[in-house]
Amino acid sequence: MGQDDAWHKENRERVFWQEFSVPWRFPVIFTRNVFAPANNALATVFQAAGPVPVLAIADSGVAEANDGLADAVQAYASSHRNALRLLSPLHVLPGGEKCKNGAAQVDRLHRLFHKHKLCRHSVVLAIGGGAFLDMAGYAAATAHRGLRLVRLPTTTLAQNDAGIGVKNGYNSFGRKNWVGTFAPPFAVISDLNFLSTLPNRECRAGLAEAVKVAVIKDAGFFQLLSGQRKKLAALELEQMEEMIIRCAALHLEHIAAGDPFEQGSARPLDFGHWSAHALEEASGGEILHGEAVAMGMALDCLYAAEKGLLREEERDQIIHLLQDLGFRLSHPVLAELDLEGALDRFRQHLGGTLCITLPLGIGCRAEFHQMDLEVLHSSRDRLMAHKG
Amino acid sequence: MGQDDAWHKENRERVFWQEFSVPWRFPVIFTRNVFAPANNALATVFQAAGPVPVLAIADSGVAEANDGLADAVQAYASSHRNALRLLSPLHVLPGGEKCKNGAAQVDRLHRLFHKHKLCRHSVVLAIGGGAFLDMAGYAAATAHRGLRLVRLPTTTLAQNDAGIGVKNGYNSFGRKNWVGTFAPPFAVISDLNFLSTLPNRECRAGLAEAVKVAVIKDAGFFQLLSGQRKKLAALELEQMEEMIIRCAALHLEHIAAGDPFEQGSARPLDFGHWSAHALEEASGGEILHGEAVAMGMALDCLYAAEKGLLREEERDQIIHLLQDLGFRLSHPVLAELDLEGALDRFRQHLGGTLCITLPLGIGCRAEFHQMDLEVLHSSRDRLMAHKG
Ligand SMILES: NC(=O)c1ccc[n+]([C@@H]2O[C@H](COP(=O)([O-])OP(=O)(O)OC[C@H]3O[C@@H](n4cnc5c(N)ncnc54)[C@H](O)[C@@H]3O)[C@@H](O)[C@H]2O)c1
Ligand SMILES: NC(=O)c1ccc[n+]([C@@H]2O[C@H](COP(=O)([O-])OP(=O)(O)OC[C@H]3O[C@@H](n4cnc5c(N)ncnc54)[C@H](O)[C@@H]3O)[C@@H](O)[C@H]2O)c1
Ligand SMILES: [Zn+2]
Ligand SMILES: [Zn+2]
Repeated sequence: MGQDDAWHKENRERVFWQEFSVPWRFPVIFTRNVFAPANNALATVFQAAGPVPVLAIADSGVAEANDGLADAVQAYASSHRNALRLLSPLHVLPGGEKCKNGAAQVDRLHRLFHKHKLCRHSVVLAIGGGAFLDMAGYAAATAHRGLRLVRLPTTTLAQNDAGIGVKNGYNSFGRKNWVGTFAPPFAVISDLNFLSTLPNRECRAGLAEAVKVAVIKDAGFFQLLSGQRKKLAALELEQMEEMIIRCAALHLEHIAAGDPFEQGSARPLDFGHWSAHALEEASGGEILHGEAVAMGMALDCLYAAEKGLLREEERDQIIHLLQDLGFRLSHPVLAELDLEGALDRFRQHLGGTLCITLPLGIGCRAEFHQMDLEVLHSSRDRLMAHKG
Repeated sequence: MGQDDAWHKENRERVFWQEFSVPWRFPVIFTRNVFAPANNALATVFQAAGPVPVLAIADSGVAEANDGLADAVQAYASSHRNALRLLSPLHVLPGGEKCKNGAAQVDRLHRLFHKHKLCRHSVVLAIGGGAFLDMAGYAAATAHRGLRLVRLPTTTLAQNDAGIGVKNGYNSFGRKNWVGTFAPPFAVISDLNFLSTLPNRECRAGLAEAVKVAVIKDAGFFQLLSGQRKKLAALELEQMEEMIIRCAALHLEHIAAGDPFEQGSARPLDFGHWSAHALEEASGGEILHGEAVAMGMALDCLYAAEKGLLREEERDQIIHLLQDLGFRLSHPVLAELDLEGALDRFRQHLGGTLCITLPLGIGCRAEFHQMDLEVLHSSRDRLMAHKG
């Protein structure tokens, strides 16, 4: 804290500048069979703090597809009594985008936290997809100004992107994540085996975020994805694992090196997202987040090429990779999308200043503060005309 | 971000440590006549950012006692068009503790923010007491993951304590601040003139926080308060101003030097607060926060002296100062208070480990992880028997 020396007698003014930094540190662990009694990943996270009170909650999609999940959690706790103490059997709550529409599930979790007398050093162990983790993360972050959250992401997208970041939230006023906070987790543990019960469509959707981060940050990763496109399109676990870990590492690095609580306007990880958010909202959830991001990136690549920012050859490499990974790049909702409105809502989401990240090449990006609407419309028309 | 080199082949494990710091910086300005067109304090806060969209909201208690507040805000904005742009006339909402009971007012503010299309770079200018600022601060912190909040605290307690910190929240399940977040403001501007319309009882209550911070941190400030006890008890503005600025500076320094987001358990600024929170809750809001803190400190001083931690002479100096400032140190609610329950709820509030700050002398403190219940009960009995 600095302190102005001058006491402005005439207008009796005095100014203090309050200044501090808040440090954060948490582990992100990739493992298999997280609840096998011999697996120490989860227990290690608590070790230092002695037996920690834990409330375990799960996404209904995961719980229904994984018979015996509740028993596995219980058995794990029994084998690691000096690390964690379960406050109750696993609670199963709705998962998927609907669980973060409005505050109902957040309120329900708050009642559960209150009933179990959770305090700021208790742990909420949340097992689920990105939507469930966003909703549960918000509930945990706002109870007693922040319980400890351990995330177990169970979808491709949650493991390589949504579940490892510092954001949470729920949808309100028909807008994605209108309510939310920034709140780093206590730990993240990704168990790839969960992907084996995930429907193919959900599993594939998360590939879009890997293409995104490769295009804007890492040409080598783009080459890797390109080389493995067939196995990735077939959702083969070995290749999925490599993709997830590398994609997560790039996201983590980006967050730590950048602006974790998004105090500025630049948001490179939002490449393709300005229209993706609008597509998701306009489709009423029919288009998945990753599918929308794939279309959004395709639109922005066509635009960037038409503006002379991106070579046509590289544009085509990106478009073909997305198609080969199994993404449809046009959709009736895209044809109808109010592009100006979507840009304006994205501007509002960023806060005042529009900031669109576009690729200048594979692994290379720049920020733009306005979009040429005419070119944008013709890019959309070309994308709609595009086969696939 | 660190990265474990070893890829544990056998259990396919990989660990990344995510690590970063988030910097915060904001001005806390003490001025008079904040809305006089010639006063630049508020305009300066925005200058760098050009004309900033501002939604002004006020505590009904302040607005009712300050005829023409809405016009003054409007006139101020007209005189400072290049700094701020009002999105609508001043909105007046209920103030006082009831506005933070439950989510109703937060929801109402969210609807208002949505209606006015606020984004993360818009400013919410909130004028009011600590309760109103806590509630409005929570609403602002959670809309779009954080709008910019400029606080104009209008009570003694809000100016010397509540309004300059980094916490917000509302009451739920009958518990103070059960829901809340940490969210530093964009700026704080304190206008002492607001205190002239504040009822005496409210104005006096804030003195307790000054005694608190003096006892645990600053013997010189305690001497100052002692020397000016008559003028402070009479709520004379000149002395109030000096007290507020010095108390605020101590709070700011403490937050910046310490643990702003309360990641640990120590909470020295909560001296006297473990029982104060319980008194406020048990009285259903009849006992004001500052009044409860005065009783809570008296109880803890009697306890500390009885345990041989605090000399009787210093105990009496603290007790007499509180009495001379006009505080009643006993109350029927205190006689009935479930002390064990209150300690347990405070432990829960801190997160697991009880941590009580007690004075070892004036300007000197220590943390204790348990309380001797027998001594605590007899301290309470002695306080109840105490005249005044
Ligand atoms: N917080 C962030 O930083 C961030 C980043 C990107 C996306 N997101 C959010 O993530 C959400 C999308 O997450 P998602 O793609 O994981 O989808 P999702 O959470 O909606 O899950 C998809 C479906 O799969 C089910 N499911 C989850 N895991 C399963 C498993 N292992 N087996 C069977 N079924 C399973 C769920 O119940 C759900 O029905 C969106 O709401 C998006 O806004 C957040
Ligand atoms: N966030 C924090 O760090 C923090 C710290 C300490 C206390 N608090 C909270 O602050 C609250 C207490 O705040 P408070 O003591 O300011 O009381 P308050 O906000 O309840 O205000 C007291 C009353 O005075 C009215 N009022 C406010 N300013 C006025 C003015 N200038 N003229 C006339 N009337 C006016 C209000 O409408 C209200 O009726 C509690 O809820 C407490 O939990 C928060
Ligand atoms: Zn995304
Ligand atoms: Zn207090």
